Amino acid sequence: MSTTDIGIDDLPVREELRGKSPYGAPQLDVPVQLNTNENPYPLPEPLVERIAERVREAARGLNRYPDRDAVELRTELAGYLTRTGNHPVALENVWAANGSNEVIQQLLQTFGGPGRTAIGFEPSYSMHALIARGTGTGWISGPRRDDFTIDEKAAADAIAAHRPDVVFITSPNNPTGTAVAPETVLALYEAAQRARADTAGALVVVDEAYVEFSHRPSLLPLLEGRPNLVVSRTMSKAFGAAGLRLGYLAAHRAVVDALQLVRLPYHLSAVTQATALAALEHTDTLLKYVEQLKDERDRLVASLRDIGYEVTDSDANFVQFGRFDGEGGAHAAWQKILDRGVLVRDNGVPGRLRVTAGTPEENDAFLDAVRALKSSVGDTPTPPKEQKR
Amino acid sequence: MSTTDIGIDDLPVREELRGKSPYGAPQLDVPVQLNTNENPYPLPEPLVERIAERVREAARGLNRYPDRDAVELRTELAGYLTRTGNHPVALENVWAANGSNEVIQQLLQTFGGPGRTAIGFEPSYSMHALIARGTGTGWISGPRRDDFTIDEKAAADAIAAHRPDVVFITSPNNPTGTAVAPETVLALYEAAQRARADTAGALVVVDEAYVEFSHRPSLLPLLEGRPNLVVSRTMSKAFGAAGLRLGYLAAHRAVVDALQLVRLPYHLSAVTQATALAALEHTDTLLKYVEQLKDERDRLVASLRDIGYEVTDSDANFVQFGRFDGEGGAHAAWQKILDRGVLVRDNGVPGRLRVTAGTPEENDAFLDAVRALKSSVGDTPTPPKEQKR
Repeated sequence: MSTTDIGIDDLPVREELRGKSPYGAPQLDVPVQLNTNENPYPLPEPLVERIAERVREAARGLNRYPDRDAVELRTELAGYLTRTGNHPVALENVWAANGSNEVIQQLLQTFGGPGRTAIGFEPSYSMHALIARGTGTGWISGPRRDDFTIDEKAAADAIAAHRPDVVFITSPNNPTGTAVAPETVLALYEAAQRARADTAGALVVVDEAYVEFSHRPSLLPLLEGRPNLVVSRTMSKAFGAAGLRLGYLAAHRAVVDALQLVRLPYHLSAVTQATALAALEHTDTLLKYVEQLKDERDRLVASLRDIGYEVTDSDANFVQFGRFDGEGGAHAAWQKILDRGVLVRDNGVPGRLRVTAGTPEENDAFLDAVRALKSSVGDTPTPPKEQKR
Repeated sequence: MSTTDIGIDDLPVREELRGKSPYGAPQLDVPVQLNTNENPYPLPEPLVERIAERVREAARGLNRYPDRDAVELRTELAGYLTRTGNHPVALENVWAANGSNEVIQQLLQTFGGPGRTAIGFEPSYSMHALIARGTGTGWISGPRRDDFTIDEKAAADAIAAHRPDVVFITSPNNPTGTAVAPETVLALYEAAQRARADTAGALVVVDEAYVEFSHRPSLLPLLEGRPNLVVSRTMSKAFGAAGLRLGYLAAHRAVVDALQLVRLPYHLSAVTQATALAALEHTDTLLKYVEQLKDERDRLVASLRDIGYEVTDSDANFVQFGRFDGEGGAHAAWQKILDRGVLVRDNGVPGRLRVTAGTPEENDAFLDAVRALKSSVGDTPTPPKEQKR
């Protein structure tokens, strides 16, 4: 065999990776991109300048390794959580990494891994399952109701039956936009500890990537007295910094200590730390954009319902809508919207698509596209049926 | 139990992590820091300005996710390897991540992992074994000769006996500074393929983090016709950018394709990509610093031998010296050198310490310190004895 003919399956890769495809939304060059839940507002110019300034300073010491413990950054993140989360958070309760994906990977390396399992209530953020696979953690797909809320009893039953080591609760949930009530989180936390009462319990990870856009307050206060609870966050959405890759978490300090055993040393570069610190100096301005986006999100929900779509209540910066049960299903509708220059996301939820709240102009373009779609044949809503992802 | 008393072992962490300590050299604030193989030369000011400029540009689009495939960066890295490595490398042969540690982690997630094993010839870069642990890969400690070179026969025998899925060959080796001959790499590559001839073979990773400082050329040309061979690199050392966290590799394109199955999407931030691209524009200047450091490294080897130390031949930007077999061993000597304001590294190799080549002034301070040490009691070299890490 010539080496030019060699493909992945000719290499000694792990069996479970054979035939798999990498994660990733299509990155298409279209006028209106509402497919990856990015914040549509570029960083304000004074912040851009401040980033250049702080990175210039960091670059002067770039020959040295960065602060391995990111003390200044974690202190500022703790301050932000304390100010906005109605719960006191200190440096030693915070950990940060390259995107919340790396935070989740470190959590699964520490609390999941080979011979252990994790559960999520699907449809939910698909990276939870993919990172489980990447860390050798068994994955359990837990249930949701047809309206995409979590059925406390069914979820607790699944936990009791499977006894997972790690439980993911995404609030607001991606791709549905659904927030989870604190009582539900508490019930599932208790169920998870009960199911593993013979061990040190189970880790419960509340993924709050989109919480700044929620009608509900953060679930951070639940951390009080619950050492097996973690709240994860990101600067990608509310801070308008998807390109920065800065995820973080708040938890009992013992959780943060435990993650030191698996984190790659010096994982957070000096330029990442400098850029994140600059963005945190401009928190107030960035949170004003969040308020605008919440209004636009609410407008999308109302307008889509006016047009006649079925819309899932949203506490995030995106909206799930449908239903597309006609020929070609959601994917055909996705293509038709794309044909009108608007890129939304087909997350694989039958009959549904997800649109990110963009600028007012982008949202108008999107609404025009889906209004036009409504008047074409075969895309009228059909009655609900049982759905499972 | 009050939650303030809770420690790591009270949490549901993986059994094999209990009682472990995190990796990391002490970060002490002393005048002369020669302990982490950093490049002592700060980036030149024109490059600092260029980084600020490119990051400012990147910050204007920071609300969007970065280029997931880092195409521009990988293209430039391929160009650098082609120019300096005597072997043509293209975009599709290159992969980059947050430090070579993340590159190695992705390789072990793909080719190692639960139920699989990796071998390294120790003492060597200790992160290979630690990342193996973090990815659930079994670790095999392979042999070295007493002079820290690799015994081809003994190494091939270990490979035949253990049939590892992944083989690490570090050249130049850290912490010993020892380069590996291409014939030895070929012999071990063949041994590894033979040992696993019933499968798709074994992956052989040549870690060339320090190769720019070597008297020998890069091992990149060995990639020709060997799809199971990987050469890993970093910008931390020769590019003077330890704070940037940019590691990369060259391999058959199928290896790069396979890594897409485990890499976290958008793992490389836009600011990391921008900073690395700026540094690559200044390659020629940075490689001049490398020439100075090679001269200083050679001076350290010669001076240490003049003083009467036993010194391992070095092809890296650091030098291993000893022997300290008196009371307290290498650690006592480490402390005495530190007491004179110079921080070197005790890597746990019995009787040996490692010093990074710094600026001429830093190296003078170090040499003064070890000269003084030599005249004190109990630190005279003792005859060689059998050593094993």
